[in-house]
Order: sequence, then structure tokens, then C-alpha cells
Amino acid sequence: MRVFSESRADRFLRSVEGSRPIFICTIGTTETAKIPGISAAGKNPQFTDYTPAADVEYLYYGGCKCIGSIPVTPEGVPTPALITKAAVDLAGMPVLVADAGSRVKPEVPFVDLGGSPGKDIRCGAAVKEATKIFENSKALGLNLARTSEFLVLGESIPGGTTTALSVMMAMGLDAEGKVSSSMPDNPHSLKLSVAEKALKSAGLRKGDLERSPIEAIEMVGDPVQAALAGLIAGAADHVKILMAGGTQMAAVLAIVDYIASSHTSNLAIGTTEWLFKDKTSDLVGLVKQICEVPILASRLCFSKSKHRGLRAYEFGVVKEGVGAGGASIAAILKSSGAITCSKIQERVEMEYKGLID
Amino acid sequence: MRVFSESRADRFLRSVEGSRPIFICTIGTTETAKIPGISAAGKNPQFTDYTPAADVEYLYYGGCKCIGSIPVTPEGVPTPALITKAAVDLAGMPVLVADAGSRVKPEVPFVDLGGSPGKDIRCGAAVKEATKIFENSKALGLNLARTSEFLVLGESIPGGTTTALSVMMAMGLDAEGKVSSSMPDNPHSLKLSVAEKALKSAGLRKGDLERSPIEAIEMVGDPVQAALAGLIAGAADHVKILMAGGTQMAAVLAIVDYIASSHTSNLAIGTTEWLFKDKTSDLVGLVKQICEVPILASRLCFSKSKHRGLRAYEFGVVKEGVGAGGASIAAILKSSGAITCSKIQERVEMEYKGLID
Repeated sequence: MRVFSESRADRFLRSVEGSRPIFICTIGTTETAKIPGISAAGKNPQFTDYTPAADVEYLYYGGCKCIGSIPVTPEGVPTPALITKAAVDLAGMPVLVADAGSRVKPEVPFVDLGGSPGKDIRCGAAVKEATKIFENSKALGLNLARTSEFLVLGESIPGGTTTALSVMMAMGLDAEGKVSSSMPDNPHSLKLSVAEKALKSAGLRKGDLERSPIEAIEMVGDPVQAALAGLIAGAADHVKILMAGGTQMAAVLAIVDYIASSHTSNLAIGTTEWLFKDKTSDLVGLVKQICEVPILASRLCFSKSKHRGLRAYEFGVVKEGVGAGGASIAAILKSSGAITCSKIQERVEMEYKGLID
Repeated sequence: MRVFSESRADRFLRSVEGSRPIFICTIGTTETAKIPGISAAGKNPQFTDYTPAADVEYLYYGGCKCIGSIPVTPEGVPTPALITKAAVDLAGMPVLVADAGSRVKPEVPFVDLGGSPGKDIRCGAAVKEATKIFENSKALGLNLARTSEFLVLGESIPGGTTTALSVMMAMGLDAEGKVSSSMPDNPHSLKLSVAEKALKSAGLRKGDLERSPIEAIEMVGDPVQAALAGLIAGAADHVKILMAGGTQMAAVLAIVDYIASSHTSNLAIGTTEWLFKDKTSDLVGLVKQICEVPILASRLCFSKSKHRGLRAYEFGVVKEGVGAGGASIAAILKSSGAITCSKIQERVEMEYKGLID
């Protein structure tokens, strides 16, 4: 595991080692993901509506119900839910699904957070129920904090890095060119033009909502941001939380840091090394602007995989999602190291073989 | 606490003392509750649609959102959610709400189990999605079992003893005159005539569905029965479960005993002494026909309460519901006895005073 902010990372790791984490996967969709070229989290832009539901169905049942096979990129590279499932299964970690607002509902039991799918942020009014989602999630977070001493928060929302960019810009962060992408060629100029249109439609200049993060979500964000911020606001006063994701989590951190900055000492970001080392994005550069939370990265590696779909991860495809990096870290920590990255990789290899055979 | 089946009860109590329970409140509605005279869980029959949502809103927020005040009987006697809330608050117990099918959705985060409100059982086709609710609940139960070693399952569904009667009759149990009621004068003949009509419409004779419990729910049951049976089927192989309720839980036990009888060794029923000692119903007589699970009863007493609404509990009004008895037992066990019935009563007294002032 790689870390940023070594001493705080060590403290975080020591405090959660051996504890029994709950993995909460928050899902949502946004019309923003359907802008051509924005997201590779689906066979084609329209398919992104199915990806979050299919991801959590796969986590629960090892197969999808709303679509015929697991989600893939347009090139056929499989969802990182493969990694998440391997990690949670190896560690016997409970999975709870929370729906912040999805167009396609998963056929698994899920917590309804009272939201609806996000609109295309270019309209400047992206998430109608941001406050409601936040408050519901806060109430849930408080109850989850009574259930386990360690929460791992993953997400699945295609287009989430673009909505992260626009929220961070609205909050005044230097985020341009820093968010990651599920594609190896990060389409920064497209993302920036979408985010700029979103701000313009909302009548905002960069930084106008520095002190109004929920308004930023409402205008230019997505429903999952409201849910994750709420879960953290409800739970982080009581328990440790691993924010399992990439640069989308920087936007959530910025929101939470304003709403409940005293809570950030219980937080860490957990991601993959593919994302941490990515030259086309800058998670560390984003987090440094917000507050000092440790960043942990799991050293998963598929360079020796028998499957082209998995080897593609080594070339910067997908990188992260469905809390893959954080779930892996949590599995390693829960087992005090008995579960390793190689074991997770072997399990992914085996599961993937079963799926494509 | 009173017990039935002493040695198994002792074993159960010892095995969960000091553990960290999760309280899961499963809610639902059924048109059956709107038959005049069937249910007192609402100001009037139409109001029973609001009772479950209002109960869990009260558990989460100490106040209701979908109605102006907490649910009451037609005579103004308050919901047993008062007791449940006092118990979970004193013990810092997490509360998770699961919706098996409610007409009015609560304004709290809740797990959607994919069901819809139950129909009037007199139509003979009461719960369309019984299998779906059962399977979703089973998947949830498995994940909850990974979260905590002790699950406490409560319910709020007005009319639930009548649907319990008809399911038990369909399964061939000698249940006539044995289910309890939220009214001091238990309307047995009305309930029996409703259950008989239900069986007749479904083309059933008593006992026809002895080996088809899910079909019994589909035809003459309610959505909460499918959810509770599923939660138990998913979790009881792994953890201890307290079925927190009265005679409705006997119907659930009958269902579970057929589907997963190996699991019943991890079960106990937790209720109130008001219900356990009730002369108008016979929980012990029902459970004895099914399998040997211990019955625990909390010795709550409001005879010295300052409030008429609470003293009414001593005269057989309400008796049980929203897992009141089981939640009290779980709070006592979690605290290894530091929380007592008197402390729960004091807290109820205080909360109720706040609500009516």
C-alpha cells in the first residue's frame, strides 16, 4: 500500500486493522454520463444507466440481472466490481447498497435515499433533492456507525469525475486537468468544457460556492456526492471511514471538509495504484488543497493475467470504481494481512474466467 | 424476563449477552387492516397506511414527518414505538428500516425489498411479489449476518395478526382464537371470518399449504411475513436472531420452520409480558405446534405512569408492536443488565411527556 501523509496513514491503518468493516456501495446515475466521450463505464453512453445497478447485482449474486453480462467499457474491459467482489468475498465483508438516485434500479435489496437520477449538469440544476439525500444519508450514517467501527464507502456513478470537476470548480479548487478518467486518454478538454457550461448555466463563477457545497451539488453535481457527504457527516464523528474511490472522492472531501471539518480526522481515501500513479490526473494535488487526509493505494497488478480484459487495467483503462481499491485495502486490513493483493488477483482471475467461459 | 423452554432460553440469552445487536424494523401495509374492527394501529382504519411509516420516522427522528404526531389507537393510546425508541436509544442500538411494501413511504433511509402493499386477503391473492421479497430479504439477511452476531427483527404492519391467522390456517396450524390483538377485546370471530373468506377465495382448505409457505403468503398473507422469513433464512445459519413480536412471529416461525428448519436453533421470540400473559391469545400454544424456540418476555409495566395513554397498556391495549418487547430485551442484554425495564419505562415516560406537552 502506498500512502500520502505517512504518519496519519499509519495511525489510520493501526486503528482499523482487524476490525470488521462494512462495505457500502452508493449508486446513482447522471445524464451527464451520456454526453459522448465523457464515460467509459458502459458499452455505450446510453448503457451507463445500467452500469451501477449491474455492478451491485454482480456484488450480490456474482451475476447481473438487469443486463446479460457484467458491465464493460466500449472496448470490452470489465467493471472493477470484479475486484470489489473478490475482496468482499475473501474477507466475508458485508455489502450494503444505497441508491442515491439511479435510473435503473438494481434487483438487490438497497437503501432508498430518496433521490432521483442526476440531470445533465450543463443545465445548471443537476440534483433537485441534494438536501434530502444528504439528510437521509446522514441518518443512515449515524446508524451504520453504531453497527461497525469501520465503514468503507464505494460508489458507482458513470460520469462522476466530470461532476466532481464541476463541483470542485464551483467550490474554488484548482481542479482543472486533475480529475481521472476510466479511459487511458483522459478527455480533459471535453470535461472542462462541460463543467464550464454547467457553471455558466447555473450563473456561477469559479469559487462562488466555496461555502455552499450542497448548493454546488444541486447546481452542478450528482446525487452520489450528496449521499457520500451525508454518510460521512453522520458517521465520521464516531468511526473510521475509508472513502473508496479516486478523484470523485476529492470532491466529496471538499464538501465534507466545509460541512463537518472536525470529522475529517477519521477519514482516509483508499484507491488503486493505477489511479494513484496515473499521470493524467492528480488525486494528491486535489486532496492537498482541501485537508490533510491520508491516501492509501492497493498494489493490485494484472500484468501477468491470462485475460486481455484484465491486462488492460495496466494500460490505464478503468483504473478504479465500485470502491475496488478501498475494498481491497479493507479486506487486507480485516484479515490482518492474511488476504493479499495476489490472493485478490487470483480470485478475480478465477471469477473472470468463469464469466467469459 | 419470562421464558418458555427454559434451558434453550438460557442458552440463547448467554450466547447474545454483551453482543452488539442491530434492530431491523420491517414495515408494510395491507388493505386487510382497513376492514372495520380489524386493527387499532391507527386513529381509524384508513390511517393504518400511515402507521408503519410514522413508527419508523419516530424511531429515527423522535417525531413523525408523514403525520403530525405519533400513531395512536382510536382511543388515543400511543404506538409501542415509544418503547422501542427508548430501548434503542438507551442502548445505542443501530436501527435499519426495511420496507416490504408500504403504501406510505417513510421519510427515513429504508431498504427497498422490492415489494408493494398487501391486498385485502379476502381476495385470495394478497401478495404478488412474495418470492421476490423473500429472495431480496434473504440476500440482505446474509449481509446483515456478516455485520453483527445478533439481529433483532421487529415489524410494523397493521392487520398483521389477521394475516398471521390466515397463513397459519393455510399451513394447517390450530390457530383459531390464538392470535393476539391491539384491542383489549380481541375480535376473534371477525378475524376468523376474514381468514376463512381469504382461504375460500384462494380455493384452499385448512392445511392445504402445509408445505408451501411462500404460496400461503402469496394467497392469504402479507408482505412483512415474506420479508421476515427471508431475513431469517439468510441470516439464521450464521447468527442469533430475536424475532421481536407477538403472535405474528408464530406465523413467520411456521414459514421458516418449513423452509429452513435447521436454522431455528438460532432463533428466539422476544415479546412483552402484556402479550405473553394475554388471556385472549396464546403465543405459547402456537409456537408449541411449530418447533421448540424459546419465548422471552420483557416485564415492562406502566401501572404507575402519570399518563393515561401509557397506563392503558396495563389494560391490554396495544400490547406489542414495532419490536417493543424484543428491543427492550436486546437493550438489557447489550448492556449486560445495566439497562433495566424501569430505565426504559422512565425514558418512555419522559419522551411521551415531551410529545404531549
